[in-house]
Amino acid sequence: MRMVDLIEKKKRGGTLTEEEIRWMISEFTEGRIPDYQMSAMLMAICFQGMTETETAQLTLAMRDSGDVMDLSGIPGVKVDKHSTGGVGDKTTLIVAPIVAACGGKVAKMSGRGLGHTGGTIDKLESIPGFRTSLTREEFFRAVNECGLAVIGQTGNLVPADKKLYALRDVTATVDSIPLIASSIMSKKLAAGSDAILLDVKTGSGAFMKTEAEARTLAETMVRIGDHAGRRTEAVITNMDVPLGRAVGNALEVREAIATLKGEGPKDLTKVCVTLASRMLVLSGLAEEGQAESMAERALKNGTAAERFAAMIRAQGGDPGVVSDVTKLPAARCTGTITAAESGWISHMDAEGIGTASMLLGAGRATKEDVLDYGAGILLVKKTGEKVMAGDTLAILYTSDKERLPAAEEKFRESIRISDKEPDRPVLIYGIVR
Amino acid sequence: MRMVDLIEKKKRGGTLTEEEIRWMISEFTEGRIPDYQMSAMLMAICFQGMTETETAQLTLAMRDSGDVMDLSGIPGVKVDKHSTGGVGDKTTLIVAPIVAACGGKVAKMSGRGLGHTGGTIDKLESIPGFRTSLTREEFFRAVNECGLAVIGQTGNLVPADKKLYALRDVTATVDSIPLIASSIMSKKLAAGSDAILLDVKTGSGAFMKTEAEARTLAETMVRIGDHAGRRTEAVITNMDVPLGRAVGNALEVREAIATLKGEGPKDLTKVCVTLASRMLVLSGLAEEGQAESMAERALKNGTAAERFAAMIRAQGGDPGVVSDVTKLPAARCTGTITAAESGWISHMDAEGIGTASMLLGAGRATKEDVLDYGAGILLVKKTGEKVMAGDTLAILYTSDKERLPAAEEKFRESIRISDKEPDRPVLIYGIVR
Repeated sequence: MRMVDLIEKKKRGGTLTEEEIRWMISEFTEGRIPDYQMSAMLMAICFQGMTETETAQLTLAMRDSGDVMDLSGIPGVKVDKHSTGGVGDKTTLIVAPIVAACGGKVAKMSGRGLGHTGGTIDKLESIPGFRTSLTREEFFRAVNECGLAVIGQTGNLVPADKKLYALRDVTATVDSIPLIASSIMSKKLAAGSDAILLDVKTGSGAFMKTEAEARTLAETMVRIGDHAGRRTEAVITNMDVPLGRAVGNALEVREAIATLKGEGPKDLTKVCVTLASRMLVLSGLAEEGQAESMAERALKNGTAAERFAAMIRAQGGDPGVVSDVTKLPAARCTGTITAAESGWISHMDAEGIGTASMLLGAGRATKEDVLDYGAGILLVKKTGEKVMAGDTLAILYTSDKERLPAAEEKFRESIRISDKEPDRPVLIYGIVR
Repeated sequence: MRMVDLIEKKKRGGTLTEEEIRWMISEFTEGRIPDYQMSAMLMAICFQGMTETETAQLTLAMRDSGDVMDLSGIPGVKVDKHSTGGVGDKTTLIVAPIVAACGGKVAKMSGRGLGHTGGTIDKLESIPGFRTSLTREEFFRAVNECGLAVIGQTGNLVPADKKLYALRDVTATVDSIPLIASSIMSKKLAAGSDAILLDVKTGSGAFMKTEAEARTLAETMVRIGDHAGRRTEAVITNMDVPLGRAVGNALEVREAIATLKGEGPKDLTKVCVTLASRMLVLSGLAEEGQAESMAERALKNGTAAERFAAMIRAQGGDPGVVSDVTKLPAARCTGTITAAESGWISHMDAEGIGTASMLLGAGRATKEDVLDYGAGILLVKKTGEKVMAGDTLAILYTSDKERLPAAEEKFRESIRISDKEPDRPVLIYGIVR
């Protein structure tokens, strides 16, 4: 088999066979297919796409390029969750405890953030003492005892994706649905859970800017899950506006704790209940139509918050933060942004707000940046809300007050006030199963 | 400037600026843009194409990546010729002497062949003593004395093309009109002639399989020439059938000598007269309508053959071959292919016949192969001619008789005999200026 022939085939719109895909991925991972051939193939895929079968075969070949987690040491149905990422997305911190409180098993590996704001791992590490690096035994024990654990990526999982992603990043071949779907799903499949819920975000703060793109990605990933024999669903949710009111690591943990106690923002609570209920259905723990009330009950009766505290304890953190959020890191300096005019907030550019938060120290511009856990933004007003000139729109937090002006400027660029009341944004566009 | 942004722009169908193209080519030539980025760009160009302006700017940037020949030491209008390549294409050996005989100046650099049959340089090297590697002084002196000289590529001409072509070859990005046109024209422009005639071949033995593709390539190259301020024309000629009856290095020199004496095959003579007449017009040596008869006269009165002998002498070869072709290398073994049935030859696959010739030793399968100068094929019958069962179709020549069976098999696969008289193939499809 010659890589140049496979590139030619794909370029002409042909369909690669399973054998060809497996050969290509294993030879590339082993360094026997050079980057310059793979990047030509990736560009050809960007133009010609891949069939459902090709995409599934690519995903499985990528999964098999490295270690595959064996979670059989954890009894019961293990359910995983993946978000395509957005600004203020702290849903894992809320959803996983709800599912655990309802009897589910969430053995999750999460990533760090690069860009806008921190990832789930960064948010958890803002809790004093929290360890995201556990041994296999510690990880299994935590899930078996608490029903949940969240750790950083471990082992040699999907090395093909690491190499492919690095190449896509520098060759303008990131935005291809089959490549995005296979990248996400190969990691989810290698992580070993039985059921997978995907939160596919769409809007200004998401990678998928339109609902149609998000739906295509969601459908592609669900079909891959089916093909791999995993129960898979996707929820398409809004990321045109940041989720909740907090953006920034410790600020988001604080908001997650409030939400776990039933005192969170409505949009965040609604999205989390929806995601958790789908995970309960996928786990076989709830019937359709009962799952949402089961999830809501876990928030009301305190069992979800209790599971979160249990996880923090099992992972070496101070569970006291759940009852006393002042134990979380806080930024020394604050800045207040007030409305220059009266009207309705007609648009908030979620990505711009994420960038403002990064400028305050909450995210990484480069891999080497050290996070300021207390930094971030509290959105006092959000899209669709009425403001009077002089009202506080947002509070900025940082440990370095020199960072305030640039962040304020970025924030102001990201918000529009209009004299007409806008439609309230849709929160959940649909479920793909 | 970042290469990833340029790739993204081209991928989205954007137009690169002159500055971007110049930066990209110079950084790539210097090794500061990695192959994996350039191959993604090349694939994006295959899908999105390039505008006329982009293609011209790419060509000039490539030309300027290395040395540019200064032919001002040769007085008069220097006219170059380039063929996109085909089977049995010995036109340079005939056309350059005709032009020189009519007062033109042909200071030509040619390539070696890889694949089917040898290139012009290989054909000339089959003449005993002929040197294709001359010093600059020898080259200029030969052109000034004889009106023509043909040498191998010299100096550091268009290093960008060498790197790009090597990459295109292994990334399935060869067949893009702007990339093909810029590759050819950058070398022609760097070779320094004032006028350029392009022989764009189309058909089964050519890279451009259809007339429409050939016309697009021809138009693209002529526009590049215009853009660069060179008088440029293209003739679109048939390569569905090998040109003339000889395929193989010394066999083709022998046929070229016969043609220079006015005793060549009609198709070859006609194509050569057409090409030479266009070069005479481009050189300002003939008016439209007089050029063909001027070229024909040079064949009839022996001056073209005399110019060919003069060039051979100037380049160290034995000019006696012109009066006595038995001084050329000849193969020891021959094989005769006879018709199995009666009818008309309805199709000859020129590429297949080229491959048969290569199997006899006339071409290189790999760069390291040593040529058997006497090897090749003499086509006794060609497309459109009537044959009776048992008639000789072709004679195969080789120094290694073990090569005969495979070559015969390949030859038989490449020819079709039908019971209906086919249309005579078109020889010249048109002129693009």
